[in-house]
Amino acid sequence: MKHNFGAGPCILPQEVFKQASEAVINFNDTGLSILEISHRSKEFEAVVAETESLIRDLLSVPQNYSILLLQGGARQQFAMAPMNLLKEGGKSAYLDTGSWASYAIKEAKNFGSVEVVASGKENNYTIIPKDYTIPTDVDYFHYTSNNTIFGTELFDIPNSPVPLVCDMSSDIMSRKIDVSKFGLIYAGAQKNIGPAGLTIVIVNNDLLGKTGRTIPSVFDYQSHINAKSMFNTPPVFSIYVAMLNLRWLRLKGGIEEIERENIVKSRTLYEEIDRNPLFRGPSAVEDRSRMNVTFVMENPELESEFLALAQKRDLVALKGHRSVGGFRASLYNALPISSVHLLVDVMQEFEENHK
Amino acid sequence: MKHNFGAGPCILPQEVFKQASEAVINFNDTGLSILEISHRSKEFEAVVAETESLIRDLLSVPQNYSILLLQGGARQQFAMAPMNLLKEGGKSAYLDTGSWASYAIKEAKNFGSVEVVASGKENNYTIIPKDYTIPTDVDYFHYTSNNTIFGTELFDIPNSPVPLVCDMSSDIMSRKIDVSKFGLIYAGAQKNIGPAGLTIVIVNNDLLGKTGRTIPSVFDYQSHINAKSMFNTPPVFSIYVAMLNLRWLRLKGGIEEIERENIVKSRTLYEEIDRNPLFRGPSAVEDRSRMNVTFVMENPELESEFLALAQKRDLVALKGHRSVGGFRASLYNALPISSVHLLVDVMQEFEENHK
Repeated sequence: MKHNFGAGPCILPQEVFKQASEAVINFNDTGLSILEISHRSKEFEAVVAETESLIRDLLSVPQNYSILLLQGGARQQFAMAPMNLLKEGGKSAYLDTGSWASYAIKEAKNFGSVEVVASGKENNYTIIPKDYTIPTDVDYFHYTSNNTIFGTELFDIPNSPVPLVCDMSSDIMSRKIDVSKFGLIYAGAQKNIGPAGLTIVIVNNDLLGKTGRTIPSVFDYQSHINAKSMFNTPPVFSIYVAMLNLRWLRLKGGIEEIERENIVKSRTLYEEIDRNPLFRGPSAVEDRSRMNVTFVMENPELESEFLALAQKRDLVALKGHRSVGGFRASLYNALPISSVHLLVDVMQEFEENHK
Repeated sequence: MKHNFGAGPCILPQEVFKQASEAVINFNDTGLSILEISHRSKEFEAVVAETESLIRDLLSVPQNYSILLLQGGARQQFAMAPMNLLKEGGKSAYLDTGSWASYAIKEAKNFGSVEVVASGKENNYTIIPKDYTIPTDVDYFHYTSNNTIFGTELFDIPNSPVPLVCDMSSDIMSRKIDVSKFGLIYAGAQKNIGPAGLTIVIVNNDLLGKTGRTIPSVFDYQSHINAKSMFNTPPVFSIYVAMLNLRWLRLKGGIEEIERENIVKSRTLYEEIDRNPLFRGPSAVEDRSRMNVTFVMENPELESEFLALAQKRDLVALKGHRSVGGFRASLYNALPISSVHLLVDVMQEFEENHK
């Protein structure tokens, strides 16, 4: 049994793997693999409907918001969001909290002007900027709710005079959010929703169709709304596994229960990082991510030895992102607290070894 | 055992389902599911490299062509192809052979002018137009090699004075093609490549970077070439299954062997359609698709009875596309000839019943 701390694609519940594996042989007692059924079959239409309904219920998505099951990841949304919301000749505002936010900013510049209201760059993205004003003359304000690489998370939804657009790829479904405060939420699925290959978009219908821009139909949210996420052949298996995973989340008690667990898991690990003299957390304490716990060693020369010990104890994918180094323990929904306890044990064992 | 004649997502080899099912529990003896591994892991990088290499070998793709593993299906390529190849203020030429070709034409008009050199529409798309001239002043000529809905296929690559762009979604890997005659080939994977959620692009590198247009990075083939198909998180599982399926194809003897089988399978079924007085094939004989065999009944009132009998004999997904009616038997690579023989048997049984 491996303890998978990977940043995404990431661990999903073992029972989801089991059910998914069975469906690859025989889906829903059809005698067919989930991989060979038509996306237009009534069985798969039921999967799409249930997935959408699980997302709507778990996040209390208001009725005037559409839920779309798309492809191309957050990267594609970096372009689709401005295409659909930024008016011709219009302006947008972005908060720069890390690599992904920067990519989003770069892509938006293809569609209009972008005001970066604040950036954490000079602090190496270890702090989420808080002192900024969102302009009133922009079409939307964009931010990234969780920064996988730097291990920071923005918990308080900004007060905004304009529609909020949020890349929630890495913390959606991990904690309660008030969807009605957003104009557009998007998320690559491969953290707490399901496997790679699926992208979720939640959009307030009232915001669409106002850019004055001709949007190629495949990039127009309205095409996907009209076609109920069947404008093109959807990523059938990724949607099916997302449905299984969201069923698991609901059975577990939904967002409220998972948030409680996520708080306990991250607190457990941060307490050890703060206590253990060999380790240190670079992110500002108030902005520490619950999903991606980044930490380094006071003596960087010991890092590879620690990684080797962790590996020996079946703790995998703890290496930090190649751009920042150190360690990153991703504590997504499906990671059991027992894996966190084991990581803490290994950190203490390492401390003992180096006394 | 069901005999799956579905038009896509479609049947894949049973051994591919078995291997894929196992990898959902334990991928490559890593102790991890294929659904939870990092796309940046060396194990998955090997999967991407092998998939690309299988495509290159099977289709003899020249070295100056890139092979990309993308998302969004042919629908997204309807936009990306002109974005990347149609110059600002430039012209393109399209051949209209059916619904998918029409959608491609519609999308291209967002990026420049489009000349439709010929259309099969007045013949209800039962014939592929052959009498047309490709202009010399266009940036490319686009056609669809196989029309899933109408059951026609274009076997002879047109002689073109400009780069050829081809939507090969539904017949790629089914027969030999000379890739060097094309500038760009794209294909949704969900027929002969693998499951839904993956799109293959094969592009002559020399054609890129010449439009004078700013292309959002996620829609720019060059971004994906530079990032070796890892510009965004790739559809991990769909790529893995595609690799398994292409391995199967190579073991079977590659394109040459599968083409031989596909000729036999389609001939077997067309012979019965032509012989059996109850059935009729609407497509022009010289344009009959080997992948999607469309047929109707002389007496349409018997169609639902025939479908019911086929269903009883475990032949599934034979209903024609909702826009044309009748029947469609898709004979993709993984469909065994025994399934075709069984369909022929049922057609003969039905004939007996109605003597």
